[in-house]
Amino acid sequence: MSMTFEPGRDGVTAASGFVAAGVAAGLKSTGAPDVALVRSLGPRYDAAGVFTSNRVFAPSVGWSRAAVADGQLAAVVLNSGGANACTGEGGRQDTARTAFLVAEQLDCALTDVAVCSTGLIGVRLPMDKLEAGVVAAASALDAAGGPAAANAIITTDTHAKTATAVGEGGYVVGGMAKGAGMLAPGLATMLVVVTTDAEVDASDLDTSLRAATRVTFDRADSDGCMSTNDTVLLLANGASAVRPQPDEFTRTLTQVCADLARQLIADAEGAEHEVAIHVRSAATEDDALEVGRAVARSNLFKCAIAGNDPNWGRVVSAVGTTRAAFDPEQLDVSFNGVMVCRAGAIGDDRALVDLHPREVHVSIELHAGSEQATIWTNDLTHGYVSENADYPT
Amino acid sequence: MSMTFEPGRDGVTAASGFVAAGVAAGLKSTGAPDVALVRSLGPRYDAAGVFTSNRVFAPSVGWSRAAVADGQLAAVVLNSGGANACTGEGGRQDTARTAFLVAEQLDCALTDVAVCSTGLIGVRLPMDKLEAGVVAAASALDAAGGPAAANAIITTDTHAKTATAVGEGGYVVGGMAKGAGMLAPGLATMLVVVTTDAEVDASDLDTSLRAATRVTFDRADSDGCMSTNDTVLLLANGASAVRPQPDEFTRTLTQVCADLARQLIADAEGAEHEVAIHVRSAATEDDALEVGRAVARSNLFKCAIAGNDPNWGRVVSAVGTTRAAFDPEQLDVSFNGVMVCRAGAIGDDRALVDLHPREVHVSIELHAGSEQATIWTNDLTHGYVSENADYPT
Repeated sequence: MSMTFEPGRDGVTAASGFVAAGVAAGLKSTGAPDVALVRSLGPRYDAAGVFTSNRVFAPSVGWSRAAVADGQLAAVVLNSGGANACTGEGGRQDTARTAFLVAEQLDCALTDVAVCSTGLIGVRLPMDKLEAGVVAAASALDAAGGPAAANAIITTDTHAKTATAVGEGGYVVGGMAKGAGMLAPGLATMLVVVTTDAEVDASDLDTSLRAATRVTFDRADSDGCMSTNDTVLLLANGASAVRPQPDEFTRTLTQVCADLARQLIADAEGAEHEVAIHVRSAATEDDALEVGRAVARSNLFKCAIAGNDPNWGRVVSAVGTTRAAFDPEQLDVSFNGVMVCRAGAIGDDRALVDLHPREVHVSIELHAGSEQATIWTNDLTHGYVSENADYPT
Repeated sequence: MSMTFEPGRDGVTAASGFVAAGVAAGLKSTGAPDVALVRSLGPRYDAAGVFTSNRVFAPSVGWSRAAVADGQLAAVVLNSGGANACTGEGGRQDTARTAFLVAEQLDCALTDVAVCSTGLIGVRLPMDKLEAGVVAAASALDAAGGPAAANAIITTDTHAKTATAVGEGGYVVGGMAKGAGMLAPGLATMLVVVTTDAEVDASDLDTSLRAATRVTFDRADSDGCMSTNDTVLLLANGASAVRPQPDEFTRTLTQVCADLARQLIADAEGAEHEVAIHVRSAATEDDALEVGRAVARSNLFKCAIAGNDPNWGRVVSAVGTTRAAFDPEQLDVSFNGVMVCRAGAIGDDRALVDLHPREVHVSIELHAGSEQATIWTNDLTHGYVSENADYPT
């Protein structure tokens, strides 16, 4: 729906009353943009956040979790080119210094500044460069800065990712994401900032954000790895003066999160296929999720997809590792609509399956109930190995 | 220790009173040997087995589990070239027919015959070929047949795997394995048959076998995938008339299992490195195992090893996904003896680490207690992707 906005009114500046910027501070050796700043102009500063569940988390995660605990944020500073994770007491001080500088530049409270970092673990940030970048970004803040901010946070992403939606009454939700990854687990670090000019109290924002991420980012599992830095922030400034119904707001927010999550999967490292694993007729939604995640984490299955091979044996053997309710003699598995495994045994001719299109749909019928869930993943390719075997530390 | 035996007195025929054979029945399109038979000549027929914990399991697993339930086995028939899993009622009948034919050929009880199959899931076995192979194998049974049997069970293995050990008093334990995989989880199907001429009651055999597999096959995790067919069988015929002390027998058996497990990891699909993940100073052994498995299943870590990159950030981020007791500020991680992460932050220069040797040792100190465990895994290479993206279904 971004075509309905003015040029630049995309991503985190699609909603009224937000300004953003993205600048090159020299953190990336390529000279590409690497510092982004997002500022809310109010009148309200309600905010919510969800973070990696990894017990080893970066100082930026600890800082932002504390900053958003009171439900208020005025600004978010993000850097690519360094995760600042596992960098000890010095790394913690670097995060605090960064927030302090932003608060000084924007004349806001230190505790209303969230910090996000992405890049390599175990490397200190070059603070002189980062601080100069923050000052430059503060000067460049603009109501058309959303795309520039989105571009400054990418790492191995091949392009910037933004999404927008308009809710009932005309309020706007817009967001940006980077990462080729997801929340929990996360491939690379996933950073997401979503802004809205709706008027929503912080506690309702938190409820809506958790509901939206649960069915979007949390159901994208590109490679089963969980980052130390994953962060999703939502800022609402009430500038539209529209106070949406909670359910309607959650739906609109979910639409933006789903769009961004889908873009992350579509741009995952080395991926040649995007794979939707639909688990149906499950006894519970948790069962459906457990089965979907087990299949999404089977390297043998993921290699088969890379090889355009509808290898249902690798699907059922992954299903068999779960505690979900099902009878092995009743399992049906379809690839792109062809039921190659029927009642736990050989089904239709697998030669009927065409896996050359980039998007693949695998459906698993557990015949144990009426719940369902979809997990999105990627294939395991030579490109993935190349990127992650050769990606410098 | 196999050099201490006569030619052919290796693997499942290293112990006295066992005969074996391996023949080519045409199940493999290559014409390579694909049917193996192992027979105990008594005087005793005590036996134990452990099997895949996958809920989707092949008829051969169900059959063998039932056959060994009374602690007695006289023979094991094994085929490569087809897993006979997810093949429905017809597949179950094929397994029963195979066991029936063996019992007929060897004049033993049907319920004393175990059956093992490995190969592709979801394909029926060509029973005419398999039955002719069983008859041929029965005629070829020989006290020097261990190596031929070991050779007939391999699939993507590059060579046959056998191991032997001599216990106190001179009894012998010998075994064969195939699979580039492991028990739970299992990469490819792992099949293992171990024989001994020691005199051990079936219930003690079971105790020793579970103790041995728990610290050997169960701690090899090449690619995190669990097979539908994994089977480890142990047959004891008492032919040496040596009745070992249980602990000593467990140690000798563990030595053979460890040797075979190590060979499986060394020959895993596409692997360029064998990686020992040593988790130390854990609060409990379960914590150590959970941490070791989490690291062994991180594709990012496994790619880093393939790229000769001592990427400790990918280790600590995997440790952080576990429930094990540890303080992130106390984690130490060493690659081949160089402590690149100290107290959760940057340690010694990673340039000091040489990952070119095939065997890699990663040590993780949790500083939470005095328990430890080692998990063996492999790197994630282009070869793995090639083998599993292109392996025909």
